[in-house]
Amino acid sequence: MRLMEAIPNFSEGRRPEVVERIAASFRRPDVFLLDQEMDATHNRAVVTAVGEPDALRQACLDACAVACELIDLTRHQGEHPRMGATDVIPFVPLSGTTQDEAVAQARELAEQIWRTLAIPTYLYEDAARDQNRRLLPAIRKGGFEALRDGAIHEQGRQPDVGGPDVHPTAGATAVGARKPLVAFNVNLATTDLELGKSIAKAVRESSGGLPKVRAMAVDMRARGRVQVSMNLTDTETTPIFQAYEFVAEAARAAGVWVAESEVIGLVGLNALTDVARHALQVEAFSTAQVLENKLLSVLAERDHEAS
Amino acid sequence: MRLMEAIPNFSEGRRPEVVERIAASFRRPDVFLLDQEMDATHNRAVVTAVGEPDALRQACLDACAVACELIDLTRHQGEHPRMGATDVIPFVPLSGTTQDEAVAQARELAEQIWRTLAIPTYLYEDAARDQNRRLLPAIRKGGFEALRDGAIHEQGRQPDVGGPDVHPTAGATAVGARKPLVAFNVNLATTDLELGKSIAKAVRESSGGLPKVRAMAVDMRARGRVQVSMNLTDTETTPIFQAYEFVAEAARAAGVWVAESEVIGLVGLNALTDVARHALQVEAFSTAQVLENKLLSVLAERDHEAS
Repeated sequence: MRLMEAIPNFSEGRRPEVVERIAASFRRPDVFLLDQEMDATHNRAVVTAVGEPDALRQACLDACAVACELIDLTRHQGEHPRMGATDVIPFVPLSGTTQDEAVAQARELAEQIWRTLAIPTYLYEDAARDQNRRLLPAIRKGGFEALRDGAIHEQGRQPDVGGPDVHPTAGATAVGARKPLVAFNVNLATTDLELGKSIAKAVRESSGGLPKVRAMAVDMRARGRVQVSMNLTDTETTPIFQAYEFVAEAARAAGVWVAESEVIGLVGLNALTDVARHALQVEAFSTAQVLENKLLSVLAERDHEAS
Repeated sequence: MRLMEAIPNFSEGRRPEVVERIAASFRRPDVFLLDQEMDATHNRAVVTAVGEPDALRQACLDACAVACELIDLTRHQGEHPRMGATDVIPFVPLSGTTQDEAVAQARELAEQIWRTLAIPTYLYEDAARDQNRRLLPAIRKGGFEALRDGAIHEQGRQPDVGGPDVHPTAGATAVGARKPLVAFNVNLATTDLELGKSIAKAVRESSGGLPKVRAMAVDMRARGRVQVSMNLTDTETTPIFQAYEFVAEAARAAGVWVAESEVIGLVGLNALTDVARHALQVEAFSTAQVLENKLLSVLAERDHEAS
């Protein structure tokens, strides 16, 4: 089955019935709602959905329409920075889909949101057309109020699609594409924070380490540990196993052992088969060999036929 | 979702319409037909199905009834040893189920097959009541004809359930339980078969190596390799990564490198998360953190509601 993931964020975290109506857009043939979370302090909801790419995009568009109808940013308050009723929509390629397709879906959705809802859109991360606007904070700076009050007309801040003004109540929406991100921490059996910092610096891409790795050291003195906390933004380029080995090797060179590691949250099967490929030297191993994945194809087929 | 696997073997490999009718028993709520294969030379079909344990057992019973109706062993010829129209049914625990449950399902099915179809049954592998009868070849020795012609009355060969004679056309059926088996080969960059043999001997359980590992050396001279070919019969006890490390270490001690490894056929997600757990030292990692597995639960739920 060809699968893509979308993790749209909506500016509503206090009215469950609104979040429920938004989430309902993702209950449709070939789309599967995996998770919905709302936070009253942030006044924000995050939906995780997976599906056939075109169907998933259509579901996102429907959800945007619901959010546009039910959320009024002129009355919205919350801790989290936001500029739209639908604030951001990142697409992530999963089994059988590519990063290029995720970019294409993001750009198509950005067009559709403007065309059908008159909400101007920005393209970010891998979907960005302007490489100076890859990162969300630069796009969202000042939030809905700043954009509405004129920032949207400034040089370099005009929307990628639509405009020139924000939608009066739904603001603007950022649509993007990125690879699956794996949050991976290696805990060292030491309280030597300086060692942790030097290893984090060695492993992170920005200071010449492994590609697609962000890293920082975290003081976990109370547990007798120093943590090298990493975000792996492309586990095809740098698999989890390689990041682990790099950190373990650097620690070993300083006479320190790895106490344990942690994988935070959900990971795609791809990232896991990449671990097997590298740890076991199994070049030819594929996700198609995983029984649960085969079962998934059978169920998805049945679901499609039933709907 | 609580999942069990069954891989029933039927004595029909030439009449596709019969195999199709047997396989149709596995298309029902909460049961998923993953694979069906037939072989004319062996005159045998193998079905791979996964499902909620009780529903899967009921599907197996229905398939036995179809096989009993449509297959006549007195007219059956084929290369593969067999004693029943439904010859063997192994149960394998998957996500959320235990080996004890697989044993219980096997024993219950063995009772049901006798009660509803008057086919005597044998219990084998982990479901065996008689520890001398764990292995299939001992139970099936001489096949349908030998049992029919009197072997079934010999000391130690009486059925576990039912009897005293075989079913006149459907023979007898062996029902068992085992853990998921992983076929894993490590190819060494050498043509030294003796080295391969000594490593295979060192790693296999029967000569004091790793628990739940069977191993043999295979001459792959034409490819410039020696293969240590392993069956891992319990990857919870000895994970794939541990078997790999054992062989790699032994080869290294002899100055030889691992060229590559191979995982043959389907593996369960458990075996894969076990690799991650060991290779990355991630104690707490679980199959629930795999996105595709979460999606599987959502689809299974939807499928259940629809049916």
